[in-house]
Amino acid sequence: MQAETPKKQIAILGSTGSIGTQALDVIRVHADRFEVYALTANNQVDLLIKQAIDFQPDAVIIANEAHYGRLKEALAPWPIKVYAGAEAVAQVVQAAPIDIVLTAMVGYAGLKPTIEAIKAGKVIALANKETMVVAGEIINSLALEHRVPILPVDSEHSAIFQCLEFNNPIEKIILTASGGPFRTLDEAALANVTKHQALKHPNWDMGAKITIDSASMMNKGFEVIEAKWLFNLKTDQIDVLVHPQSIIHSMVQFHDGSIKAQLGLPDMKLPILYALSYPQRCKTDFPRLDFSTLTKLTFEQPDKGRFRNLALAYEAMEAGGNMPCILNAANEVVVEAFLHDRISFPGMSDVIAKTMSGISFLKSPVYEDYVATDREARRLAHTLLPR
Amino acid sequence: MQAETPKKQIAILGSTGSIGTQALDVIRVHADRFEVYALTANNQVDLLIKQAIDFQPDAVIIANEAHYGRLKEALAPWPIKVYAGAEAVAQVVQAAPIDIVLTAMVGYAGLKPTIEAIKAGKVIALANKETMVVAGEIINSLALEHRVPILPVDSEHSAIFQCLEFNNPIEKIILTASGGPFRTLDEAALANVTKHQALKHPNWDMGAKITIDSASMMNKGFEVIEAKWLFNLKTDQIDVLVHPQSIIHSMVQFHDGSIKAQLGLPDMKLPILYALSYPQRCKTDFPRLDFSTLTKLTFEQPDKGRFRNLALAYEAMEAGGNMPCILNAANEVVVEAFLHDRISFPGMSDVIAKTMSGISFLKSPVYEDYVATDREARRLAHTLLPR
Repeated sequence: MQAETPKKQIAILGSTGSIGTQALDVIRVHADRFEVYALTANNQVDLLIKQAIDFQPDAVIIANEAHYGRLKEALAPWPIKVYAGAEAVAQVVQAAPIDIVLTAMVGYAGLKPTIEAIKAGKVIALANKETMVVAGEIINSLALEHRVPILPVDSEHSAIFQCLEFNNPIEKIILTASGGPFRTLDEAALANVTKHQALKHPNWDMGAKITIDSASMMNKGFEVIEAKWLFNLKTDQIDVLVHPQSIIHSMVQFHDGSIKAQLGLPDMKLPILYALSYPQRCKTDFPRLDFSTLTKLTFEQPDKGRFRNLALAYEAMEAGGNMPCILNAANEVVVEAFLHDRISFPGMSDVIAKTMSGISFLKSPVYEDYVATDREARRLAHTLLPR
Repeated sequence: MQAETPKKQIAILGSTGSIGTQALDVIRVHADRFEVYALTANNQVDLLIKQAIDFQPDAVIIANEAHYGRLKEALAPWPIKVYAGAEAVAQVVQAAPIDIVLTAMVGYAGLKPTIEAIKAGKVIALANKETMVVAGEIINSLALEHRVPILPVDSEHSAIFQCLEFNNPIEKIILTASGGPFRTLDEAALANVTKHQALKHPNWDMGAKITIDSASMMNKGFEVIEAKWLFNLKTDQIDVLVHPQSIIHSMVQFHDGSIKAQLGLPDMKLPILYALSYPQRCKTDFPRLDFSTLTKLTFEQPDKGRFRNLALAYEAMEAGGNMPCILNAANEVVVEAFLHDRISFPGMSDVIAKTMSGISFLKSPVYEDYVATDREARRLAHTLLPR
């Protein structure tokens, strides 16, 4: 006989994105454990309406206020509170019944609501890595102050988190990287890749922005910085290893030399569920890795020459201060430009590097400095885009 | 500033063997944590004398009483108690100051002293897998009764143990196997292999008996049975996967589908140290796995046709009762015969299979039944050896 435990109340920020929709799939199957308390989206109002009717959350919020009327009207028959605007997102995460806030929105926009959720004492299931890239130091000190755990959702960081041991220090971590769709292309070929090629990731099915980041290896660079903050590591404790099959999701080496890895099929549902169910694991019917067909796993060193973004991310991490914020802002601008055919694939790294050297460096920024840095870096990066 | 913790007092049964000498190497380096309380050996009296002088244990025991005089005389200048005989081994493990008994002797001889150590409440660092193969049910119920942890030293079981999570059930385990030196040989070639070829293990440096067992895959069969008892598993929860590089030492799959693996260079010192230092890990200077030279890991299914011992071990495990004891006794006889050129490599499996069907099956044996079964199975196996 199992004791009746109250269902965990979940707020999903960015519920219409790739992580958000997969989180809802997971919650639907494990409805005995989880309940949706709040859903937020940026623009996809139709999907948000459908999700709200399906899951009957206490509240839904559309960040883009232009969609408020439509959302309000569609949900009028239901006892669901409807809000609009970024400020409402930052407020709703503070609601008393919420246990876990899953931050699954894209980019810098995740920073503010994540800070508010931490201040309200909510467990963070962190899918929005940009939050840690931009302001890891602030996030960590707030989390410590409010005794809030930050549980990784990224498959690599979830892998590391699953391998950690209470009281045994990490010697180093090995973040695996698929290498993306352009792993084997030379510099000349890289100059001519299109967004359609970049959007076809060999292993993972993800949103557009992160898929481009994966192709350019900026995603891996962000993950390096995210890992630094999540696991309190120094630069030389974080290695990247290209592993094209994406079966080993990452590894931890302990100070006795022992290495632990987490592996499985590439499927984001597992790390999402793990973050929600932690420290318990839920029994699932996810497809299992079939060892009768697994014949080899291969590894190679990342090429920071062809994939300069990875080198730029290490540089930004070493510099610290507001440099990762500059890196992220410039990257958001160039990815958007690449998705609109306004810049070449290697051109993205040029703009990022120039933005990093063009913005005033601040060693110990406070929140307002990040806001200003983000704004200035975006403006500069825009001026650096090809005409 | 670190709190002064008392050193763990270690008894090593089989200190002159491969595991025993490596354990002493480990203890020498970590003398701030461990102290040798007792050493035992079977026949290698000269090495035992040297070890005793080096480590100044409270007691040493030579199982073969013929060496007692020589041992006693050599250690006369030192304040070290000297005993002889198998009974003395079973007694010394009960000494009050001992914290951990490392059972590193070879074969069935490990059973009695392991039982006595458990009854005396000592933590068992189990390197003698035959103890679990022969009498896992008795060992487990004694360990439960006396609240004694049994910590695996075998690299595969240590890997699994390192991956376990409190409160999250195992769905299955994947025991990796190098496949041994004859992995790629066909049946005709296997008929002609020599002991010299069998004694050359591609990855692991071990004693003679276990090296032959590795070549014949009986070692993996024993590990399957050992895992059943150590981790409380059913037959269909234990898979064997051939992995010739011996980098992944084994894996655990949890009921959410997530898999964890422990990996590293093949070196027994790490699992030995882990069992002694558990739940802490000690900082070591063991060589680290170099990911810049690791380019691939390969996997294949084991061939139970060419390596019948693995099938026989699964059969014995399924049958339960005294069948694994019969399997082990017959195997000890044929390995000894193979090392004396008295039987062919495939002939070993024939004798084991015939012994398994020639001895009375007991569903629920007690200790005395195991002793009788072991004796009868050895006698029968001897009569089945080629003339």
